Amino acid sequence: MKLFFLGTGAGIPAKHRNVTSIALKLLEERGTIWLFDCGEATQHQILHTSIKPRRLEKIFITHLHGDHIYGLPGLLSSRSFQGGETELIVYGPKGLEDFIRISLEVSQTYLKYPLKIVEIESGVIFEDEQFLVEARLLEHGIPSYGYRIVEKDKPGTLLAEKLQEKGIQPGPIYRKIKNGEPVVLDSGEVVEASEFLGDPQKGKIVTILGDTRKCENALFLAKDADTLVHEATFAQNENQLAYDYFHSTTGQAAEVAVQAEVKKLYLTHISSRYDRDAAHVLELEAKEIFPNSEVVDDFKEYNI
Amino acid sequence: MKLFFLGTGAGIPAKHRNVTSIALKLLEERGTIWLFDCGEATQHQILHTSIKPRRLEKIFITHLHGDHIYGLPGLLSSRSFQGGETELIVYGPKGLEDFIRISLEVSQTYLKYPLKIVEIESGVIFEDEQFLVEARLLEHGIPSYGYRIVEKDKPGTLLAEKLQEKGIQPGPIYRKIKNGEPVVLDSGEVVEASEFLGDPQKGKIVTILGDTRKCENALFLAKDADTLVHEATFAQNENQLAYDYFHSTTGQAAEVAVQAEVKKLYLTHISSRYDRDAAHVLELEAKEIFPNSEVVDDFKEYNI
Ligand SMILES: [Zn+2]
Ligand SMILES: [Zn+2]
Repeated sequence: MKLFFLGTGAGIPAKHRNVTSIALKLLEERGTIWLFDCGEATQHQILHTSIKPRRLEKIFITHLHGDHIYGLPGLLSSRSFQGGETELIVYGPKGLEDFIRISLEVSQTYLKYPLKIVEIESGVIFEDEQFLVEARLLEHGIPSYGYRIVEKDKPGTLLAEKLQEKGIQPGPIYRKIKNGEPVVLDSGEVVEASEFLGDPQKGKIVTILGDTRKCENALFLAKDADTLVHEATFAQNENQLAYDYFHSTTGQAAEVAVQAEVKKLYLTHISSRYDRDAAHVLELEAKEIFPNSEVVDDFKEYNI
Repeated sequence: MKLFFLGTGAGIPAKHRNVTSIALKLLEERGTIWLFDCGEATQHQILHTSIKPRRLEKIFITHLHGDHIYGLPGLLSSRSFQGGETELIVYGPKGLEDFIRISLEVSQTYLKYPLKIVEIESGVIFEDEQFLVEARLLEHGIPSYGYRIVEKDKPGTLLAEKLQEKGIQPGPIYRKIKNGEPVVLDSGEVVEASEFLGDPQKGKIVTILGDTRKCENALFLAKDADTLVHEATFAQNENQLAYDYFHSTTGQAAEVAVQAEVKKLYLTHISSRYDRDAAHVLELEAKEIFPNSEVVDDFKEYNI
């Protein structure tokens, strides 16, 4: 599982930071990529990466401000043009469907893949045997969601030596053991699957929040996360500005990380008022409160 | 008057060619800039130029395909954010207003300047004392317009020596002479203004066409133009492909230039199938038919 930052800026594009988009690469887990937000020129950023738009399986939109959605019509169109044929589901607040439908309609764009648009409310918005995604409303000028992506625990790996000792040969039985089904040996003896499995692997928890003030739901969504992506539009001394514009400071984001007991904090949505040096100061501010903080840049990739 | 190519590609963005947008810089003539089409990331391209979005006075959209309009919501928003306060008028085919209004509405974007959207039909769509703009329908899969921008002839410059000879001192009378009003001398003698003016300066004609097959209206709009901007999505040997997709080949664009007797032809809307070397071949093909042809690249500027 990898997190790839396609755009880490706020409000309007700057030369070295595009507006928001984050890719959660689940290539090993499910051969697909999930996208969080899609500011203008996200498809242009993707051109400079190894990401293939046809691999996109889901796009989660945190809120409908232009710097988070204006790249959607172009990316959806280009995915079709570039051979995307599998279903794509876009999740986001009410109004998202109007924007996408009208954009595709007036431009007479006909997608060659099924597009599903899900206007969400708080709660579990997706679940399968591998993942669960929960959304909650944050505190922004308009409805803005945070997403908690929970990877389910994976069964332990097969203990090859033990299997051999008991004379169990590779075959369909290995899958049954992986699934936790009890095993009947040649001797007639019935053995619990767990006997032949290592410890189960704990799934990862990734929390990606939309623009927000520091709030209760941010803490709820981030609780015990391996990775928290939090906006830090302003420096620590700009509490009033952050409050007035429904954003967070570096300090507030770091406090969420501490209180939610996350392992790693990535700060993004950096205002263009902060240049590269100033962004480094933002990072230091956050580290004072939560040492495992990092201000991210466009095109940075992190293992989770 | 200058023509600045912000995007010269077709369909989808490529690394070295963005989708369509062309700036007509009228800084000397009226202190403003007119834009023709606004594909996604036009505002990103502008970031790398000296163009100030607040200088934008008019945007002309040729047709509503995504590669010509998906950059509008972002550019309109950023113009407001960056201090644009003067009225902006956007002209284009029916459907344009829906797209712009919905995009601004769902994102709750409130512009700090008056935005006027004019859904056009064929005919003169703008005229003042300096310029006249005429639009005509071309031949594309959806309604696609071409624009003929006619700069009106300017009166000749004042002949300072002759004025001094006749004892006419600088003052409001100079403006009257410029306007062609007859002059009453101190002696009571009445003299024609033209006596004190050099030859009138011929205004320029610039023709910028949307995506199209070769057609009658293209010839009409381009007649005697100083500068013709014509799409050349395909190479000369791809007549069938060009016809099927409602586009033009290099050869067809060059034929329009010959038949309309224009002075200069700029070829744009180059398919991403053609790399830099192939684009050079496209230019040679056009030059065979119309020697004053040029395949343009992003960020190229030309005096008119
Ligand atoms: Zn934002
Ligand atoms: Zn086009």
